[in-house]
Parts: sequence; structure tokens; C-alpha cells
Amino acid sequence: MIGWKSATLGLVGAMSLAVTLTNAQEMTITSPGYTDDGAVMAPTGYREWVFIGTPLTPNALNGGEAPFPEFHNVYVEPSAYAHFKNTGEWANGTQIAKELVLIRQGDDCDETNGSCGEVSGQGYFQGEFAGLELTVKDTDRFADEPGGWVYYSFGHHAPPYAETAEAFPTESCNACHEASADTDFVFTQFYPVLRAVQEGN
Amino acid sequence: MIGWKSATLGLVGAMSLAVTLTNAQEMTITSPGYTDDGAVMAPTGYREWVFIGTPLTPNALNGGEAPFPEFHNVYVEPSAYAHFKNTGEWANGTQIAKELVLIRQGDDCDETNGSCGEVSGQGYFQGEFAGLELTVKDTDRFADEPGGWVYYSFGHHAPPYAETAEAFPTESCNACHEASADTDFVFTQFYPVLRAVQEGN
Repeated sequence: MIGWKSATLGLVGAMSLAVTLTNAQEMTITSPGYTDDGAVMAPTGYREWVFIGTPLTPNALNGGEAPFPEFHNVYVEPSAYAHFKNTGEWANGTQIAKELVLIRQGDDCDETNGSCGEVSGQGYFQGEFAGLELTVKDTDRFADEPGGWVYYSFGHHAPPYAETAEAFPTESCNACHEASADTDFVFTQFYPVLRAVQEGN
Repeated sequence: MIGWKSATLGLVGAMSLAVTLTNAQEMTITSPGYTDDGAVMAPTGYREWVFIGTPLTPNALNGGEAPFPEFHNVYVEPSAYAHFKNTGEWANGTQIAKELVLIRQGDDCDETNGSCGEVSGQGYFQGEFAGLELTVKDTDRFADEPGGWVYYSFGHHAPPYAETAEAFPTESCNACHEASADTDFVFTQFYPVLRAVQEGN
């Protein structure tokens, strides 16, 4: 398993290389580890990857049954982010992690919308971690999956999460993600950091 | 001005040092630059700093006048984060950036709570960047400020932001931040990444 420090060193190397590279495909991507039977190894250090955005769909606004009732903090592994920044494309080996975070239960919580009050006002604040998911792109390893992306969950509960995970069946995640096929199955419209990179600002 | 790559290299160095250091105060912190007349230089590369959480207090839930109606994406400069991770304390030179992000206006937006509909449900999704703020701790440079923290804004509008900023008057930000004096003026309770570091998980 390649940990956080190696990933960061990889990013520094990639960023330096980008100055002189003519073929960006040569950039090194830190792909996940896999077990002998093909399960993926859980990412480590992902809270120090590059954060790209956090959608929030509270249960209270979705008939009590939101697909993701928590904040989802989404992070891109640094070498994959550097590649995207340089090329606008997701390389094979790209890892995008999504950590679920419960809405903090503060004062005067409102059942109609799920918000609570804190010193800065009524709204939504991040409480406890509640789950970890990962998507990986690899058109060689996962040649039959749409865009080469597979999706994993390391548990929908408080840490510690599972150390390995099996891929979800294709249809279970692509039922939604196929809506973003035009942007290589990543919901770029919800991630301002990615849009800024694409627009060069 | 010390840019993103240097900051990352600094972090790698700090992380390596942490293995053998007996006095964590020796860790190198990447502090901001200042102009000759004392204005702070805007951070660069802060979207690649360590994300710690994103509060959201929509205008619609705050009588139309929330102090911060946008998402606020909060990031800690990597060397300061490494120091906090190792010691539980904010070092002199610590930089914490807050980027404001408008709520994306999707389908079926609800005026009573400010949420909108997207493929994953009704809720709040990050739209366009709308402002950049920074807080810096330095008990030497800002000896008269509570905890040594000063607060800056580089503009409450779309990028590009201002390149420098003057500190806010003490009372304008500490009116709220004094509520977090017990946690060195950082609202740790809203930042699960910081709480996890404190709790060692």
C-alpha cells in the first residue's frame, strides 16, 4: 500500500515534470493497491488529498430517504489531480474518495429541513464521519465498465472503515453516474475546484 | 511569496522530521508574505491545502441575511496542519483559508430553504467561487490580537481576488471567534478532520 507521503512526493515530481513534458501521459499516477483476489485496498491519507467539493442532500428535504443524507466530502488523489490539471482528463489509476459526514446536531434543529443553529447562524455543519467510498478509473483493469470506472464502499458507518472492498455491480452506481458520461462520469458541475482548473483560474 | 510547491515540499520535510523530532516546535511553518506596509499577501494554491470542513448557512434559513450565505470551504496550510497533527496546537505562522462558494442554482429551487434539485436529490451543491478570506496566527507579529489571530478578506466576489489585504479590526471577527477561545479561536467542533486528528483516528 502506498501511503500519503509517497503520494505527495509523486505529486511534487509530477508538478516539476509538467514544466518540460511534451507528453503528459508520462506523468506518474498513484493507483490503488489490490489484493490477490482483486479487492481494492482502502485509501490512506485521503483527507490530505485535493478536496474538490461537498454536496449535501439532507434526508429532511428528500422524503426522509436521501440516497446520501450526509455531507459528502470529495477528494482526488494528488497525482491524478495534477494530471487532470495539466490535461483536463482523468488518467488510468485515478482515485476519487468520498467521505460521508453526518450533519451536526446543534441547537434548534428544524425537522422540516434538517438544519441546526450555531454561532454563525442556522444551517448545516459537519458532525461525525459516517462512511467512505472510492471510485477508480482504469480502462485496462476494468475494460468492461463504463469509462473504466468502478465504485467501492468501505462501510457506511463511523470509522474505522473496512481495509478492502469489492466493486459494486456496474448498474448500482452507473444508474446515476451515467448522467455525467459527457464529463467522463465525474459530476464536474458540482465541483468548483475542477471547473476552475478547466477554465484556468 | 512562497507558492504552493514550496509549501508542499515544506510539509514533506516536516513530516519526515516528525519521526525523530523531540521538540515539535522545530518544525518549519510556511507563514504568509507581507508587504512593506504590513498588508498580507493572498495565499496561492490554497485549494491544494488540507481541507477541514465546510459550514453552510443559507440566506433562506437566516431571514435573508446570513453572515455567510455561501458554503465556506476551509483549508489549512499543509505545514501548519502537520504541526497541529503532531502537537494539537496552532503554531505561529499558521494560515487557514476560507473560500466562499455560492449555492448552485439547479432545478426546482425552494425559496423557503434555498435548496435545489439535482440527480442525487434535493439539497445544496457547490456553484461558483464567491470570495476568499484568511486568518493567520502569529503571537509575535500580532501580539495585541486575541490568541495572536488576525483576519483578512481578499474580496467577497468572483475571482480574481485581491493580491493583498489589510487586517480587519479586532472586534469585527472576534465578536464571533471569541466563542471558540477555548480551542485557540478555531471552531474545531465544525471541522471533523481536526477532531479526528485530535482523537488520533
